[in-house]
Amino acid sequence: MTEKQQDVIFVGNKPPMSYVLAIITSLSSGNLKEITLKARGQAITTAVDVAEIARSRFIKDLKVTKIAIGTAEMPPREGENKSRMVSTIEITLSK
Amino acid sequence: MTEKQQDVIFVGNKPPMSYVLAIITSLSSGNLKEITLKARGQAITTAVDVAEIARSRFIKDLKVTKIAIGTAEMPPREGENKSRMVSTIEITLSK
Repeated sequence: MTEKQQDVIFVGNKPPMSYVLAIITSLSSGNLKEITLKARGQAITTAVDVAEIARSRFIKDLKVTKIAIGTAEMPPREGENKSRMVSTIEITLSK
Repeated sequence: MTEKQQDVIFVGNKPPMSYVLAIITSLSSGNLKEITLKARGQAITTAVDVAEIARSRFIKDLKVTKIAIGTAEMPPREGENKSRMVSTIEITLSK
């Protein structure tokens, strides 16, 4: 664990502050320098909120070093027979 | 108008396809090579959807050349006296 230099946090439908706290915890735990937030669908907005809150209010030396968007295929909902496409985002934050 | 090389589309709460059509219209109208989508709050997810749909289904040579996130201050809602912070995104698409 202490060797790990990179971490991923999956952002879902919890309040943004729970993910901000996860970032703070990860970054203060040791030699971790970089965290990637991953989200899809409506959680994309939450991921952007989390990055902005962490950066502007809590960890001043945190920088957004990479943002990538994409599309993922989701299994069909119950009762449907077509898979759905959802947008995804990955935001990398570095100290 | 025909001299313009860059355009901005503000993404709000219409269905994603209306913004995709706006992109297609802009890019087919002449020498425009670059379009920036701007969105804030919940419309951030829509902006990512719009970029992904335009790129994967309609304009194959369109590339995401820049993504920036930020925070904007919004005026207080009626009956409140504190301004609110909202997250923003800018996605630049180029041919």
